[in-house]
Order: sequence, then C-alpha cells, then structure tokens
Amino acid sequence: MKFLIIGGDAAGMSAASRAKRHLPEMGVQVLEKTRDVSYSACGMPYNIADAGRDMDDLVVRSADVFRRKQGIDLLTEHQVLSIDPQAKTVSGKTGAGEPFGFGYDKLLIAAGASPLMPDVPGVALPGVMALKNLEDGRRLKAYLARQTVRKALIIGMGYIGLEMVEALCSRGVAVDMVKPGPVFLPWMQPMLAEVVRETVTDNGVGLYAGHPVEAIERGGGGLRVICRERTFSADLVLCAIGVAPNSQIAADAGLALGLNGAIAVDRRLRTSNADIYAAGDCADAYHLVTGKKTWVPLALRANRAGWAVADNICGRPVALPGIAGTAVFKVFDLQVARTGLSQREALDAGFEPVDVQIQARSRAHAHPGAATISIQMLADKKSGRLLGAQMVGREGVAHRINAVAVALHNRMTVADFAQTDLAYAPPFSPVWDPLLTTANQLMKKL
Amino acid sequence: MKFLIIGGDAAGMSAASRAKRHLPEMGVQVLEKTRDVSYSACGMPYNIADAGRDMDDLVVRSADVFRRKQGIDLLTEHQVLSIDPQAKTVSGKTGAGEPFGFGYDKLLIAAGASPLMPDVPGVALPGVMALKNLEDGRRLKAYLARQTVRKALIIGMGYIGLEMVEALCSRGVAVDMVKPGPVFLPWMQPMLAEVVRETVTDNGVGLYAGHPVEAIERGGGGLRVICRERTFSADLVLCAIGVAPNSQIAADAGLALGLNGAIAVDRRLRTSNADIYAAGDCADAYHLVTGKKTWVPLALRANRAGWAVADNICGRPVALPGIAGTAVFKVFDLQVARTGLSQREALDAGFEPVDVQIQARSRAHAHPGAATISIQMLADKKSGRLLGAQMVGREGVAHRINAVAVALHNRMTVADFAQTDLAYAPPFSPVWDPLLTTANQLMKKL
Repeated sequence: MKFLIIGGDAAGMSAASRAKRHLPEMGVQVLEKTRDVSYSACGMPYNIADAGRDMDDLVVRSADVFRRKQGIDLLTEHQVLSIDPQAKTVSGKTGAGEPFGFGYDKLLIAAGASPLMPDVPGVALPGVMALKNLEDGRRLKAYLARQTVRKALIIGMGYIGLEMVEALCSRGVAVDMVKPGPVFLPWMQPMLAEVVRETVTDNGVGLYAGHPVEAIERGGGGLRVICRERTFSADLVLCAIGVAPNSQIAADAGLALGLNGAIAVDRRLRTSNADIYAAGDCADAYHLVTGKKTWVPLALRANRAGWAVADNICGRPVALPGIAGTAVFKVFDLQVARTGLSQREALDAGFEPVDVQIQARSRAHAHPGAATISIQMLADKKSGRLLGAQMVGREGVAHRINAVAVALHNRMTVADFAQTDLAYAPPFSPVWDPLLTTANQLMKKL
Repeated sequence: MKFLIIGGDAAGMSAASRAKRHLPEMGVQVLEKTRDVSYSACGMPYNIADAGRDMDDLVVRSADVFRRKQGIDLLTEHQVLSIDPQAKTVSGKTGAGEPFGFGYDKLLIAAGASPLMPDVPGVALPGVMALKNLEDGRRLKAYLARQTVRKALIIGMGYIGLEMVEALCSRGVAVDMVKPGPVFLPWMQPMLAEVVRETVTDNGVGLYAGHPVEAIERGGGGLRVICRERTFSADLVLCAIGVAPNSQIAADAGLALGLNGAIAVDRRLRTSNADIYAAGDCADAYHLVTGKKTWVPLALRANRAGWAVADNICGRPVALPGIAGTAVFKVFDLQVARTGLSQREALDAGFEPVDVQIQARSRAHAHPGAATISIQMLADKKSGRLLGAQMVGREGVAHRINAVAVALHNRMTVADFAQTDLAYAPPFSPVWDPLLTTANQLMKKL
C-alpha cells in the first residue's frame, strides 16, 4: 500500500512517522511545497526576538533524518496543485518548475493554512510581511537585520500579533497595532481583555482598534498605512489578521468543505472521499463541549490528528473525541489562557451561559511575590455544566488552565469541579486554588 | 440550635464562618486551645526564612473579626479535655487553668494534629523543636533571633522537613537531615526521588537516611544527636517526622477511630455519633481512586471538610467525593508534586500497577531557558485506568499536576487522558505536553 501525504509539517510528518512505525514496509511519500519540514512555527516570534539565533534552530527533525533513518520518501519544494480522486493521483510542480505526478492508495491532505492578507493596495510592497512558515520567518528576520526598523505596524491583534509585539519591542522597535473591529480580544471576557490591553499599552505599544486599513503606500522614507481617520508610518508592516485553510485543492477535487472553508472530516479524519484523509490546519474538527464542528488552527490538534490518520490507515482505528479549544499565549510578562467556550460561543451553541469573573492571588496569603490572576468561568445554567474558562496573570496561568480542559473532556458540572483535589503549597497557590474559588462563586449563580 | 466547634484553624473556622453565613441566627461557638485562629500553618517555613517578617502575618482573619463581624462566639486558650456524648457537653480548662463546660446540639471536632516526637531521651531539651502551630513557629523564630544557630539537624525528610531545609539554609544555617528509614522519599518513584535528593545535597545539605536517633544531649556548646553509627552536633534540632491526629478526646468519648488513629467519618463527615462531626487533620477521608479510607493531613481538604460540615448541619446535605492525594512542595528551586496513588499504594489497593518515567523539557523545542521535568505516571493494567502521577522540575510542575488530579476525579483511562486538549505555547510547554507524552508512553505498556 502507498500512503501519500500532502504537506510536511505538524500533521503530515506526524502521520508519516507514525505510519512507518506501525508498518515499516508500507510506502510513505510526503510532498512538501516549501523546503522546510517539521518545524516549530509557533517558536518563530521568540526566535525573531533574538537576533543571534538561527531560524533553523526551529527545525525539530531534518528532512534527512526522515529520509534516511525513517525511510520516508520525502520530497521538498513539491507543490501539489491538483488531486484526481478517480485515478487516485496527485500532480503539481517543483520549486524548479518541473511538473510531477504520483499515485496513492490512501491520501492525507495536511496542507496547512495560509495567512490572510488585507485586500488593499500596497500589500505586495517590500516591508509588508506575514508570518506563517519558516521562509516567512527568515524573510522577516533578514529584513530586521538589513534595514533600520525603528517603527513597525502590526495589522491584527490576535495571538500571533501579540506574540510579535513582544518580539519586536524586545528588539527595540516601536510598535503600533491596528485592527478594523472595535473590540480588543473580542472572544475574551471584557475585564480580562482589559488586563491584557493595559499590559500591552504599558509597554509602549499603540493600540488602534476600529481602524480598517484602506491602503499601504511608500512614503516618509518607509511605509505609510492609511486608515480612514488616521495614517501610520512604519518601516515594517506585519499582517497578522488570521489564517485560512489551504483547502482549494480539496475543493477542486470535489471534497466537502466545512467550517471556515476547512476540509470537512469525521472523527476518524476521513474526508467525503473514502481514500482521502485531512488533518491539521486545513481540516475542521469537533468541539468536545458543543459536539459541533469547529476550526482551530493550533499545533497540538494537528499533531494528534496526524497520528490518528496513521492509526486509522494502519488498521488501528481511532476516533478523536474533539478539541476543547485550549490555547495559551504570552505577551510581555503576561500569561493568557483559555479553554472551552466563550460567552458568545456558548450562546451560539444553545447553552444558557452564566459566568463569574474574579481576581485571585497566585500564591498563598502573606506569601511574597504573588501576582494577580484574573479568571472568568462559564457554565450552563440549565445543566450546571462547566463550559469554559479564561485566565490572565503574570504567573500560574499557563498550566492551571489544563485542569479545566480535563474537566471539559469529562463534561463535569461546576459543582463537581469545585470538589477537585488541586495542589496547594504557599509558593504556588492559595489553599483554595483560584480555579476552585471561581467555581465556588459560579455555583452561587447556578 | 447550638453548633459547637472544637478547634479554630482551617476546618473549624471554615465550618463556623459558613454556618453563620447559612444560618445567621444559629449559635456558633468555637473553642481553640491556642491563642491563634485561622492561620496559614503551611506558610511558616517561608515566614521563618525571612527574619524581618512577623509570624502574625500568617493570620488570615483575626479572632476579633470572627467575633464582631461574623458573630461567632470564639474562645481562644480554651482546651477541651472531654466530651460527654450523652449529656451533649464538653469540658476543659482555659490557659489560665480555669475549668469550663459547654453544651451543644451539634458538635464538630476539628482538633487538628500534633507533631510526632522521637521517643528518645533529650527531646525536651531547649533547642529541640517541632513545627505545627503558630506558637511553634514563634518559638523557633525567636530561637533563631536569640541564639547563634550555625548548624541545624532536621529529624525527618518529609514535606515539612524539606521546606524547613530551604528556610534554614536561606538564613545561613548549615543543615543535616537524618531519618531512621533507609529510603529518601519512599513514596516517590526512585528516579524522581533521586532528582530531589541531588538538589538537596547540591545545596550543601547532608542527608543521612537509615540513622535512627537514639538520644539527644547537650554537648559541644550546643546539642548532640546520637545515632548508632554517627553523632551529629547542632545548635538547633527540628523534629519533622510527621504528625498524628488529635483524636484522643474522640476515642475517650467512644467515637470510632479509623486509619492512623484518625476519627472515622463518612462522606458527610459524620462520626459514629449522630450529633458529632469531625473534619480536618484529626479525621480520616475517602480516597477517590481506591474508594477506601485514607488519612492525609493537608489544608485544602480540611477547609473543604469544614464547609461540608456546616452545609450538612444547616440542612444543605453534601457528601464529599474524597481526596486524590494531590500534594506539592518546593525545595530550593525544585517543584515536587504528586497526585493519586504511588506504586505501593496501588498494589495495596488491589490494582495491577504499571508505570513509566520520562524526562521532558518544560518549554518547546529550541525555546531558551527550559528545565527538565521528570514525570512518573501509573495505571492499572487490567482496566487501563490512570492511578496517579508524580513530577519533579524547576518549573511547570506545581500546576501541571492538577490536570491529572481532575482526571482521577473522573476515573479516566490513560487512553482518554492522552486525548485531552492541553495548552501549548513555546514558553510553557512542548507541543505534546509532558503529561501527554508520558501518557502516550504508558499506553504502550497497557
């Protein structure tokens, strides 16, 4: 049997490696359009922050190891342009412009996502960039090394934008951020979003929500970003307004698309064609709180889905329970985490959401060095079920959210969660962990 | 109705406050033998570490607030010496030696625990101390201020001993530790225990396991602690060999005792007498993994049990699911955490335990500043059920253990736990959280 994989990053290489471990005799071929495979894209902002680090540090395993040690037929700079599900072939062209074609018995589409670019004049100007793959990272880092970048404008205020603000500030660049929508972190409970906003502005970053970009042009020795009511000058413009699934070849092949135009897959990662799977940022997923489809382009679920595809192809059937929507990021000295549903998502899913927000200390009463942790917790009034939590603080946030994520997997009620035996010692928590205190408060509203 | 409470710390004051909130008209009386109520005993090592801090910083809420603001009849320096369950009275004597007697409708025994002292000559010598209540802490701190303490010996190598090693070292005291048993941290997986042992000895602490103390005597300008094969000299001897439940008055009153001589209670915290409850360090509890009785003198479960007693007495019946045995402590720059069962406990409970130990990085591939996290995870081979985990590392341990604790509450299998959606960002974790990697490894042995 020949297992062909389109895309050589998280989902694709996870599937390839695992398939080879399960069935060493199986032919496994990977076609990757860039020259990089298996790298930590999420690590790019931290790499960019440090001028002395090589972008290639982020490569987890080299193409050579996959080829020689694991016996995977890995071809880089091979961009697949079309799939023929009847003939069970794919075709495309190499970086050098040579056409190629390959057959498959089972196909995995793990083509990832691409950054969205604002649909305005000037996005192709030098100095206007996005950040998705390592090549983007190298380009941005080379630009910072070559040009004198005193001022940057980031379009977008999501995870990547906020991670890049910190990276650019640490390199001495003054940064402004703009976005068209009026609300900073709209998925976040307002009190918590305000904590993040304050931290960002306290670090000298200008935040301009409600400013749609109309054009980018050269000017003033650099670039000018023109919004209706305001014009920003910058030496560098980073577009971080989100990503879109690379699902066009799937759509062209007649595969069903789902949420956000991602390739629709079932819990076994099967597309609408019995011999084609999809995994990672190009595919959708089930949300385990709502039971409905969702699309969350994050790394863990991509790796996990890649494994599950290999398991299913190799005769070890596995169905994924779904994702909880857990995410964490760091911005300056702040940890920001969420899991489960936001208030809006809970309403849309038909729950009757009630929430509380509290502020707690990260360490015990009278223990020095404590930080404030702001927590929001959400439950369904009808069932008492825990639906999600959000947290912000200088310490004790990033891993604490996982307790709630595990609770969501088990469909716990807030009352049950409030009885969990969480760790306590004065340097790490109050006796009643902030999560328990929040759950206790939330119970009063149920 | 009159609700009488013996003991004014975690369980006792939690019960008193909550009962008053539920039923403001109810008479609530608390009899506390020391002059302190509602303090953070766990904070004492950190307070002792800082010569400039007042021990009274650890008082969470003063007796006066309980009396005036909450209307609790709180009497300190009132030691209860006997209970008459037929007459429904208690009697005792005050700090000044005056006898007293009070009646009750419902009684809560929240008398705590007392430090065990080695049964050897010399334990009453000046400079030989233990650490349980605030008075112990004041005495120890005053001793450090008054005497020239260059060298200390700690008898015992448990949580308190290890927290106190750090505290004493930070005050410039050279510390040795002795214990009679041959194994350092016997409940801990050996590879993990070795990490802790190395950290402690790397900080200049002498560890002497397998040395039963035979006597303590004056000598050499200080104290000499005599073991069979070795004699230690010290200016201060701290006994930290564990605590025993203060259950004698309960036993004298005919109440059933359980594990470790703790007062036996059901899930509603009822003793063998219908009108008497017990909670906190003096009472036993259910372990939610084994379903059997356990005795774990820790703060969270004491507070929680105090609340549950108040709920039950005030007509809001609640049954506690039990404890997972979650615990965390800090020793020097190391975080040490556990939840669930050790290998030994799993065997004793009739499981067929299998475990794995792995070492993982606390941050993503190539992210600077990562520490090693050592993890052990334990499961039942018959059912695949997750039974417990232990973790050691310089960061990312204290809160990470909570994800496993929540999993234990839900009787998750390792396979289910391996599918949980845990948080990932490069500064906080590899893509596959160390817990997920451990679970994935453990699944191979099931």
